[in-house]
Amino acid sequence: MTGPMYTKLVETLPSAVPFVGPETQERARGRSFAARLGANENVFGPSPHAIAAMTKAAGEVWQYGDAESYDLKQALSRLHSIEPENIIVGEGIDGLLGYIARMFVEPGVKVVTSQGAYPTFNYHVAGFGGELVTVPFKGDYEDPVALMEKAAEVGARLVYLSNPDNPMGTVHSADVIQAAIDAVPENCLFILDEAYIEFAPDGHAPALDTEDRRVIRMRTFSKAYGMAGARIGYGIGQADLITSFNKIRNHFGLSRISQAGALAAVQDQRYLQQTVQRVAQGRKRIEEIAAEQGLSVVPSATNFVAIDCGQDAAFAKAVLDQLVARDIFVRMPFVAPQNRCIRLSVGTPSDLSLFELQFPLALEAASGD
Amino acid sequence: MTGPMYTKLVETLPSAVPFVGPETQERARGRSFAARLGANENVFGPSPHAIAAMTKAAGEVWQYGDAESYDLKQALSRLHSIEPENIIVGEGIDGLLGYIARMFVEPGVKVVTSQGAYPTFNYHVAGFGGELVTVPFKGDYEDPVALMEKAAEVGARLVYLSNPDNPMGTVHSADVIQAAIDAVPENCLFILDEAYIEFAPDGHAPALDTEDRRVIRMRTFSKAYGMAGARIGYGIGQADLITSFNKIRNHFGLSRISQAGALAAVQDQRYLQQTVQRVAQGRKRIEEIAAEQGLSVVPSATNFVAIDCGQDAAFAKAVLDQLVARDIFVRMPFVAPQNRCIRLSVGTPSDLSLFELQFPLALEAASGD
Repeated sequence: MTGPMYTKLVETLPSAVPFVGPETQERARGRSFAARLGANENVFGPSPHAIAAMTKAAGEVWQYGDAESYDLKQALSRLHSIEPENIIVGEGIDGLLGYIARMFVEPGVKVVTSQGAYPTFNYHVAGFGGELVTVPFKGDYEDPVALMEKAAEVGARLVYLSNPDNPMGTVHSADVIQAAIDAVPENCLFILDEAYIEFAPDGHAPALDTEDRRVIRMRTFSKAYGMAGARIGYGIGQADLITSFNKIRNHFGLSRISQAGALAAVQDQRYLQQTVQRVAQGRKRIEEIAAEQGLSVVPSATNFVAIDCGQDAAFAKAVLDQLVARDIFVRMPFVAPQNRCIRLSVGTPSDLSLFELQFPLALEAASGD
Repeated sequence: MTGPMYTKLVETLPSAVPFVGPETQERARGRSFAARLGANENVFGPSPHAIAAMTKAAGEVWQYGDAESYDLKQALSRLHSIEPENIIVGEGIDGLLGYIARMFVEPGVKVVTSQGAYPTFNYHVAGFGGELVTVPFKGDYEDPVALMEKAAEVGARLVYLSNPDNPMGTVHSADVIQAAIDAVPENCLFILDEAYIEFAPDGHAPALDTEDRRVIRMRTFSKAYGMAGARIGYGIGQADLITSFNKIRNHFGLSRISQAGALAAVQDQRYLQQTVQRVAQGRKRIEEIAAEQGLSVVPSATNFVAIDCGQDAAFAKAVLDQLVARDIFVRMPFVAPQNRCIRLSVGTPSDLSLFELQFPLALEAASGD
């Protein structure tokens, strides 16, 4: 027996994981982290109403979820003043990015993104045989003008940008992003990943235009809503594009518990605003902790902050390793010059006190390496 | 603007849903069902320990799930006396079938299944450009010999069989299934869907052989474990096959709450056995209710029962419509001659009392149609 016969494409793919998760690291270390600040998670968690709704739904979990996510789409349509047919609910932005890659990417197709941007998107594109073309950051910002120029130049079918940006946390104004939308080349879809948009001040999300076939807006319950573990997000776009997800999606793929939690979370916008304020306070605290060490931070419109360690990538990596050795889970950007930084999520006040205590020691140890 | 450019394959796909869910039907009717017996759900739900674990996890849902499902794989490896590297945990069997289709199906590839078998599998195969070749049922049983012969004849890369069977509930012995495994043609993978196996008496699952590259065994928490809404299942297979899922799967796609619930459910095998007994009692009750009307049932090794309505498909459909009109959600098989039956899941005793009350009225009304 020679065994099963994979597709030509799958034969060529590596067994890869875009990120190593904190649990995997903990098992390798043989020790838990004391502060979990590396995965852009929102430690403040969801609204108590969402937790109550999920608890109730846990008792009803013998039933499949609603394949149409009807109630949630109704609530989102009211929140955004758009129609339900302009909303696709899916298994997190990750899941939706996979569906988008499947719809638009086949061998030979070019896809444009920023160098050092979201690895899971790149993983999905490569997984369908696409060819990634990258554009460098400009300062610590993604470069929407260069992205659209490159997309036109190479005839890309997809172009990806996150606003606010991951991994740096920087944000462009609505005007800049609208200009990017207006510059999307023909036959190209702009994936505007707004996973962190609720953390940004007003004026950074262009008005939703659900007639515009050039762009899909990606939103999630994983970040400001504090429900990363529930795996639920949504896309906003023109109705034909949204309908086309029905060609390929896993219709009954959503957890009933996650649907219930997301619905309750949307309905508690006051809690969301409290979270946004707590996160803003946390960002300020991280900035102060960095300043105590004579270091600066990259201005952030997200729930994480990149601290410029003031030297090269090797030094930042040494600082990161020292923090991890001190049970503080953080990550860092992938490419130069952004990888002069370490990146940490806003934790609880006690998480940040722990970081404040360990950061000088980590810097000192890294300097002595 | 001509809009975004889909792949050639996706352009040809219909926007289809394999099943219309009960919530969708309720919205169309403008009225809830009084008994939800159509979706092969397990109304007895999960172990109280699983509900407690999900409730606890709801409070920790700000964290992503473990991309490796490490703890769950450890528990499953103990349960089945196999190694964790022989287990892939995924977003229900539906999600895993999608991954398998992606790994093995490309345009021109042939896939063999039974006529009238699981539509979601067919949907995934078509979604990757595969060509379905079907074999008829034999009596009310899937025909393993004919399936393997057809797979060899057409050079199929995948062959699918569920044991116990959905939609009829019939089951083959372990010997018959092992003979099918031994007859898998070269370069073909046998997907043995054992979603309902826990309901079957002993002696219907061949021994697990994790060296065998010809077969992947599909298991789920949706059925006997009572957690359909949690969207979590697993596959058991040879280690290289299991590893290959890492090429394409959504690594962080599993709900943390579902992982916690599944772990607790696995650890409460006593509750599982109680469920299996309650389901057996429910099947007996359905058989009695059918007998009161002079009708017989198809012998079932699952949590659902096909009642032979004694006439043709049009009559069975009329009975189904009459039940739905009386607020009892049931479904029926798709093809002749199995579509002489209606199919209902074992409900609570009060669900079945409601069915007992309405079934004679539905039969009478259908006869008068």
